[in-house]
Amino acid sequence: MSPLNIGVVGTGIFARDGHLPVFQAHPDKFKVVAATNKTKSKAEEFAKLAGLPDDKVFDDMESLINDKDVDYVDVLLPAQFNLDAVKKCIAAGKPVQIEKPIAANMQQARELVEVAEASDLPIAISENWSFLQAINVAKGHLPRIGEIVGFQHNSTGPFVLNNKYMSTSWRQHPEHIGGFLSDGGVHQLALVTALVGEFESISALTSQVREASGDDDIVFSTIKIRDSKCIGSFSYGSAFGATDKWIYLKIYGVNGSIMIELSNKAAPVVKVKVGSDAEHSGEEEVYSVNEDKSFGIYEEFTNFHDAVSKKDKSLLISTPRAAFHHLACVAAFIESSARKGDHVEVERY
Amino acid sequence: MSPLNIGVVGTGIFARDGHLPVFQAHPDKFKVVAATNKTKSKAEEFAKLAGLPDDKVFDDMESLINDKDVDYVDVLLPAQFNLDAVKKCIAAGKPVQIEKPIAANMQQARELVEVAEASDLPIAISENWSFLQAINVAKGHLPRIGEIVGFQHNSTGPFVLNNKYMSTSWRQHPEHIGGFLSDGGVHQLALVTALVGEFESISALTSQVREASGDDDIVFSTIKIRDSKCIGSFSYGSAFGATDKWIYLKIYGVNGSIMIELSNKAAPVVKVKVGSDAEHSGEEEVYSVNEDKSFGIYEEFTNFHDAVSKKDKSLLISTPRAAFHHLACVAAFIESSARKGDHVEVERY
Repeated sequence: MSPLNIGVVGTGIFARDGHLPVFQAHPDKFKVVAATNKTKSKAEEFAKLAGLPDDKVFDDMESLINDKDVDYVDVLLPAQFNLDAVKKCIAAGKPVQIEKPIAANMQQARELVEVAEASDLPIAISENWSFLQAINVAKGHLPRIGEIVGFQHNSTGPFVLNNKYMSTSWRQHPEHIGGFLSDGGVHQLALVTALVGEFESISALTSQVREASGDDDIVFSTIKIRDSKCIGSFSYGSAFGATDKWIYLKIYGVNGSIMIELSNKAAPVVKVKVGSDAEHSGEEEVYSVNEDKSFGIYEEFTNFHDAVSKKDKSLLISTPRAAFHHLACVAAFIESSARKGDHVEVERY
Repeated sequence: MSPLNIGVVGTGIFARDGHLPVFQAHPDKFKVVAATNKTKSKAEEFAKLAGLPDDKVFDDMESLINDKDVDYVDVLLPAQFNLDAVKKCIAAGKPVQIEKPIAANMQQARELVEVAEASDLPIAISENWSFLQAINVAKGHLPRIGEIVGFQHNSTGPFVLNNKYMSTSWRQHPEHIGGFLSDGGVHQLALVTALVGEFESISALTSQVREASGDDDIVFSTIKIRDSKCIGSFSYGSAFGATDKWIYLKIYGVNGSIMIELSNKAAPVVKVKVGSDAEHSGEEEVYSVNEDKSFGIYEEFTNFHDAVSKKDKSLLISTPRAAFHHLACVAAFIESSARKGDHVEVERY
């Protein structure tokens, strides 16, 4: 398998700390060949780390996309620029992967899915949580717990004062809906919906706990799953006072339950209990999950590499359509909260 | 302190297994002197266990209430009979304690609070969860975690096939709203509201998982706390397949968090973490709670005994007004779910 040549658009914190290390650790698959950034000096810093020659630091996205050496484009821009980037990549015939959330609002998200689905090019969303091994481990046990009737997802943690992402201006002055709720929350939604199904309707309350968040930063919600008897709750927020980082998804079936614990991201655990009731209950089974240290990023790019190499976009797991749903859930959180917690149907593509 | 003479109305499972052992363990405070039951043979069985003479087994509630040897009345009847029992006790000038939920519906509950508050007699609800030591331990730490901005309550467990209470006819054919949701759920609501405050509005989904429950048996809900910025979630159900009994309440403040774990009722734990954010976080403090083995029942009767002895109903903790709120929350769960999860204001007395 020969490496594909990657052009990186947006060389900020996550390009440097998240994507580049994965590319460099897997030179058989990935080779960064070009970079561009709104602030050129940042692109030049990135180019040094990536070992790029000066003439591969481009002044603008268009030049990078159209560079003949670029096989596919890795876009890490604030969400409001995703649609434009995707259109330009399609025009240039280049496969493209964009960061989550899919767009800044539902109008953009819908148009992005439209143009992506009208193209034969692989177009994916960088949603690393869709590639967690914990999902695969839990999926393997799902048929054992019977019809799913309930679930609870919780992802809560303390406010991190020195959050390196907090200082980025697009987060301080968000143009995307939901602020931190869509910036972080779509990760958790990717996990939950992969296992319990898409959300049909949402009753939610959101609130802003920290001024620094710039917008609402916690959400508690009640969920109806589409085409299912399943109901549940989804809670998310990292704006609290001192508290343990606590991330779990518990799935209740009529024949057992599955609990995914991600509180310690370095050592996720899946716990399974099978049986119809208290009197017919097996022992708890505990499965340690070997999560890649990139926490799904390597798998996400491998999947994209596969689709590009085989020119088969149907291989993609983290599709624009899936990411549309995740953002639609955040939009429903916000709309429901504005209506004091009335239920809101989640917009469908 | 001389023991007060108790007349027991309704000598079913909980009178025998819950109340009587507490009375017998504390003869300095409590002395059962009379009993009555719809099925007289059951009252006679209970009388044997309680060491009562034959002439203290009454044919009907009225005779027991008006017996001169009865100082106060312990009523353990299906909820729809509570109002009538309270009225009769007031007419006879006898303090009375009734079982939860306060009534079968909100109309009865409202009338019960009215007649109770119009009387100088101590009238209490047997809500043992209001007397958990865990509440006191957690309350002591609440001021340390600053303004409360969020909470999560969860009480989930497996369906218990051999549930001794399931076979009682009034549970199989419930006349009280909510079925298992009010029968069991008011306990959890007593715990949560004691610590985070009364619920202002509820967005909930309920569902019936087990045919044997006779009505909805699980609820997931989103909560707004009255006169507070606090929002949260409340989940309850014991109708699932095999799963650990999992009972907790987590309270999030801007300066820390408190977690009460009641999964193992014999060894509750309160965990406290104090600090404004991740960088300013103290070590987790873990407090084991010495819960009375009666799980609050002894404390509940001691509180009632105090109020009766001192002829001071203001000493009561588990008042009709408090129990009104707990049932109003269940009524709101049901109404909200019927409206697909739209928010419902909780009825106020």
